[in-house]
Amino acid sequence: MPYEFYYWPGIQGRGEFVRLVLEEAGADYVDVARGPRGMSTMMRMIEAADHPPFAPPFLKDGDLIIGQTSAILLYLGARHGLAPKDPAGGLWTQQIQLTIADLVAEAHDTHHPISVGLYYEDQQDEALQRAKDFRQNRIPKFLGWFETILTRNPAGDAHLVGAELSYADLSLFQVIEGLSYAFPKAMTRELRKVPRVAALRDTVAVRPRIQSYLQSPRRIPLNEEGIFRHYPELDG
Amino acid sequence: MPYEFYYWPGIQGRGEFVRLVLEEAGADYVDVARGPRGMSTMMRMIEAADHPPFAPPFLKDGDLIIGQTSAILLYLGARHGLAPKDPAGGLWTQQIQLTIADLVAEAHDTHHPISVGLYYEDQQDEALQRAKDFRQNRIPKFLGWFETILTRNPAGDAHLVGAELSYADLSLFQVIEGLSYAFPKAMTRELRKVPRVAALRDTVAVRPRIQSYLQSPRRIPLNEEGIFRHYPELDG
Repeated sequence: MPYEFYYWPGIQGRGEFVRLVLEEAGADYVDVARGPRGMSTMMRMIEAADHPPFAPPFLKDGDLIIGQTSAILLYLGARHGLAPKDPAGGLWTQQIQLTIADLVAEAHDTHHPISVGLYYEDQQDEALQRAKDFRQNRIPKFLGWFETILTRNPAGDAHLVGAELSYADLSLFQVIEGLSYAFPKAMTRELRKVPRVAALRDTVAVRPRIQSYLQSPRRIPLNEEGIFRHYPELDG
Repeated sequence: MPYEFYYWPGIQGRGEFVRLVLEEAGADYVDVARGPRGMSTMMRMIEAADHPPFAPPFLKDGDLIIGQTSAILLYLGARHGLAPKDPAGGLWTQQIQLTIADLVAEAHDTHHPISVGLYYEDQQDEALQRAKDFRQNRIPKFLGWFETILTRNPAGDAHLVGAELSYADLSLFQVIEGLSYAFPKAMTRELRKVPRVAALRDTVAVRPRIQSYLQSPRRIPLNEEGIFRHYPELDG
């Protein structure tokens, strides 16, 4: 039985971290909300489930429903060989994922610093301030940490965890893609300072299944409805 | 060998979610940064570890260092019977924890909507707007979700997961305590709408080890340096 994956159609958003794992794993899955009547199916599940997710994305595997991106990757990583089998390695992978999730939340708040219920245009002054701080302080701090853990990886600097690909590598690829779309000037500058991060991004991009996915219609283009939005006034 | 727990001394912050689990478990632990030369020990570990945490809190168990609150609780919950042993129950507990972590991050941003590097006073206008949205929209949405999952719990509404205490219950207690300190007016109003959440908070508060901990000097009082700050102008 294929996995059923649920997320807002039309954006990459947090769901994209799950899609990348499913694609790299070669897993059989249905992207339900992008299909016919998919949105109503998704909303009905949130309404009726014993374990309703707080928000999409969520994954259904048989009777099991899992929400929260990091919990979904914890589950899929263990099932598809995209995390170490030893408990310490599995926790370290999840710890990196949780830090990437923090970065994603901060990236979102650059264009919505006051309220998710207001339009960007209604909080643009505050967004300009928050985005400046994000570019100048937060992006360098997070990228610097990723570079540090690659540098210190006893198994070499090709992957975040050990010597093999993990879901943390896929997620780092995705956050770099998203930030580079949203903040092309800042990221061009900052990526030069973190060569191992940039190299890992390139390694992931040419993995056969990922490359094939990125060129397929299943990959939704980044746009100004999602988490990573290119508003030129927020870059610099 | 006792656990070594590391967090900023002087605040409850994210570290408090870990402290509550250690206390309820009756675990032997040292709150390192509150002891002599503790801060320099903490900073040295972040500087030198193969697996450096991005930020405190982190936990050291023998050679294992775990950062990110939710990952620490995933680890401790399994070791101390504060999460179901079955994989589905363990994931559900973690999913709830991750949603609580999202709420905690949003609570923090009510007083720091622009930058963690600026004082509250330098972003107070924006904080007034963000806090209003948080009180009116986000607190009700999160509390409503907790009430819903208590209501739908097939094992009864006394606990978030199954029929036993889990780390998710302890974390819900803590976030209610923090929000009630920061936003007493709003929380008095909102808690009336979620009687199961309020009852669970009360249940946790009188557990013998928790009650003893709350009355001890180990429990740092909430204050205006932490995540949950009482600025009367942000309440209402």
